[in-house]
Amino acid sequence: MTPEQFRTIGYRLVDWIAEYRANLPSRCVMSNERPGAIREKLASFPPYSGDEFDAVLADFERVIVPGITHWNHPSFFASAPSSTSLAAVLGELLASGLGVSCTTWHASPAGTELEELVMDWFRQMLGLSDAFHGVIHDSSSTAALVAALCARERATDDQRLGAGLHASSPLTAYTSDQAHGCVEKALLLAGIGRQHIRFIETDERYAMRADLLRTRIEDDIRAGMLPCVVVATIGTHDTAGVDPLVPIGRVASRYGVWLHIDAATAGAAMVAPECRPHWTGIESADSLAVDLHRWLGAGMDCTAYYVRDTDRLQRVMSTSHHGTMDDETTSYRHWGIPSDRRFRALKCWFLLREQGTNGLIERVRRDIQHAKWLEAQVRKADGWEVAAPVLFQTVCVRHIPHGLSSAEITSAEIDQHNLRWVERVNESGKAYLTSTLIDGRRVARISIGAEATELSHIRDLWALMQQCAGAR
Amino acid sequence: MTPEQFRTIGYRLVDWIAEYRANLPSRCVMSNERPGAIREKLASFPPYSGDEFDAVLADFERVIVPGITHWNHPSFFASAPSSTSLAAVLGELLASGLGVSCTTWHASPAGTELEELVMDWFRQMLGLSDAFHGVIHDSSSTAALVAALCARERATDDQRLGAGLHASSPLTAYTSDQAHGCVEKALLLAGIGRQHIRFIETDERYAMRADLLRTRIEDDIRAGMLPCVVVATIGTHDTAGVDPLVPIGRVASRYGVWLHIDAATAGAAMVAPECRPHWTGIESADSLAVDLHRWLGAGMDCTAYYVRDTDRLQRVMSTSHHGTMDDETTSYRHWGIPSDRRFRALKCWFLLREQGTNGLIERVRRDIQHAKWLEAQVRKADGWEVAAPVLFQTVCVRHIPHGLSSAEITSAEIDQHNLRWVERVNESGKAYLTSTLIDGRRVARISIGAEATELSHIRDLWALMQQCAGAR
Ligand SMILES: Cc1ncc(COP(=O)(O)O)c(C=O)c1O
Ligand SMILES: Cc1ncc(COP(=O)(O)O)c(C=O)c1O
Repeated sequence: MTPEQFRTIGYRLVDWIAEYRANLPSRCVMSNERPGAIREKLASFPPYSGDEFDAVLADFERVIVPGITHWNHPSFFASAPSSTSLAAVLGELLASGLGVSCTTWHASPAGTELEELVMDWFRQMLGLSDAFHGVIHDSSSTAALVAALCARERATDDQRLGAGLHASSPLTAYTSDQAHGCVEKALLLAGIGRQHIRFIETDERYAMRADLLRTRIEDDIRAGMLPCVVVATIGTHDTAGVDPLVPIGRVASRYGVWLHIDAATAGAAMVAPECRPHWTGIESADSLAVDLHRWLGAGMDCTAYYVRDTDRLQRVMSTSHHGTMDDETTSYRHWGIPSDRRFRALKCWFLLREQGTNGLIERVRRDIQHAKWLEAQVRKADGWEVAAPVLFQTVCVRHIPHGLSSAEITSAEIDQHNLRWVERVNESGKAYLTSTLIDGRRVARISIGAEATELSHIRDLWALMQQCAGAR
Repeated sequence: MTPEQFRTIGYRLVDWIAEYRANLPSRCVMSNERPGAIREKLASFPPYSGDEFDAVLADFERVIVPGITHWNHPSFFASAPSSTSLAAVLGELLASGLGVSCTTWHASPAGTELEELVMDWFRQMLGLSDAFHGVIHDSSSTAALVAALCARERATDDQRLGAGLHASSPLTAYTSDQAHGCVEKALLLAGIGRQHIRFIETDERYAMRADLLRTRIEDDIRAGMLPCVVVATIGTHDTAGVDPLVPIGRVASRYGVWLHIDAATAGAAMVAPECRPHWTGIESADSLAVDLHRWLGAGMDCTAYYVRDTDRLQRVMSTSHHGTMDDETTSYRHWGIPSDRRFRALKCWFLLREQGTNGLIERVRRDIQHAKWLEAQVRKADGWEVAAPVLFQTVCVRHIPHGLSSAEITSAEIDQHNLRWVERVNESGKAYLTSTLIDGRRVARISIGAEATELSHIRDLWALMQQCAGAR
């Protein structure tokens, strides 16, 4: 493809995206393709000769687009908000056009320095002290793994440089029973057996009980175990619960255990100073992760990972044989798993400059207000319950059919009912939300925060929820 | 940013990229900024209010561009080829505009099915049997880690579900002394101590000695160790050496050891049938990785990871608590580390359709011919040596100054001379290459394969090399 052809098709795709975004509200949120239908419409063998790009774009429209579930749709309330703001789309375009790797400073000085800069800007925006140093990972899942690996090496005095994990004392790890599945996965991958992962119980607000954490650690030490890492969550996936960092930090520091904070989604709220009391105690963390690709709109995949001890991080993550010399410059290849790294800082810089601190604060405030508004409607309405405190942008609700009290129908029937009305909402194509289990009960989970979502969409959602829950 | 503003700026950025690519040859390959200079020119505090995008783009031109080392430049011969083909730029643009996550099938049916499709197309293009199933990881480094983790779990009968690694027998791992640093890192992160990683010696062609591998494994078993994984390389980083897969595969299968193949760069050559003899025996691999973001031009970060036992992969990589139900559809979140995943398949599909199998084969052939051409010039020229067999696109050379024989000057002086002429090449701004140590001797390493590189650029490079090596 020549630059001139690129220009022509590039314009068309820019137009396509502009129109796609402008008309998103009129699309069904979820694709209703059946499994396998998309592959059936595409050649199962690669083409021998190159195709005209027109044919490729025609196939894109015909086959791919109907198979898309629209994460940027204003009525996308599933998973966790993960929009790609248009400024971030432009940043990704330009980064891709440049096509450089931010592996060492020499490999692309501007790539490295801009990553340092945006990580520092974002640190300031979150109200974190300059004891924290940031690097972009792809996801909070990877961030949890990196934290677990660093914690493991600190606890074992760098066993990896010796005989390996089999020679160390049994390591234990701690998280809450509300932690995201990626936390357990990270701990298992780090080599801590499931028998030694403690899922600390949570209180009625779905927050880790620091008193139980402490007893558990003390019991484990008494039993000859080596407590290695605590992963606390700010904004759990299901209910956006908040673990109490002050007492947890005290326990972790008392026993010399690495404290990692998973603030994947809700961490973004800390750009608004009034939210920061939720993570009082954050300075006791050894590391923390906030997804820029969720609530803030930087587009997948882009997680800010902050760590205090950058020496340890680099010791654990460095490759011993690498091509370029080390000097006083930063080589981000030694701060994470991949060797070569895409220029993600560019889209972050575009986003932060285009929106400003203020723009992001206002977005976060708007979405929290939307959540409060929905909570208020649910509280007022007959037969509806709010299933968990609404602290950020996640609202969990449950509907008891027909003004029956929960005593009159079985819990299984209520679960079934809630599962079914959520399905009806999704099948309508007008909104997409998921359900989850809280305390063994099925509840609907509305995760607000797509960039395009305004109050009108929440109003529409609430009407739709009532309609779908009422109809049998 | 409104869709209309996006359209206006999007056009400008498309123009910018078209012109950037068209005029790349006239730019200096390496940035000559000094460390810290870029950050000094940018505000150290985030802006409170959003900026006009014009101001952002002006800063991009003024500050970022001079700090870029141009990986798509036709005279970029450092690291390993890593262009972003313009078709891939368009795919990244569109994927970013859609902004979906390919975490489960339901989260974006087309994202999942297109990933299945392009991984299968690419498998066919590499001549692999359909016993292999593919998934996109970000890098070969991550792929090596995933392989090491799966190998560890297979060898220990899923220790992670029990008491953890500390309770297992000592695991051992095997790779060659020419393996990329990311292999050792992956093994260390997987919890295998450095004491138990065997760097098997290589022969005069920098290929792993399968006989030594076998003795080493047998010795380890006798000593009560649990051999867990062999990582063989097709196209080592320094010299593009090729480990002999037939005897290695025989040893691995005899002792039930996981065989992972790191074919990060050179694996791409296997699109050309005449290259496939280099990896005869590949079907004995349990897993293998080929970067699509290197020689083939899919743009960072995009690695094809193929595995036989997808059940094991998913067991090791799955999260136990996840929002969406599992059914007969593919959930790629259980095939790797991150939970949410960018829509990378789109750019792969654009690239494969636009270039066709044939287009990629011709590119690979062209680059191998360029390498052979350069090899031939070096062989003919006085004072120059080819330092390793030229099998693919990497050429390692050494210059002995002024017709002196190596007996007349010390080896350290020759090393110094080679380091310096490479620096002179790079400082000229006309090409960028690196040097490395082979058998303890400093050699220049020319890694050919940027999409834009034609024979004329290799001719210019050779003239420049002679000039820089001749001048003192
Ligand atoms: C609390 C929490 N942690 C971790 C994750 C996983 O995030 P990622 O996709 O960035 O790995 C999520 C996803 O929504 C989450 O809500
Ligand atoms: C042989 C080999 N393995 C692994 C890598 C690392 O690749 P990645 O950046 O995809 O992790 C390289 C990089 O050039 C390489 O040449």
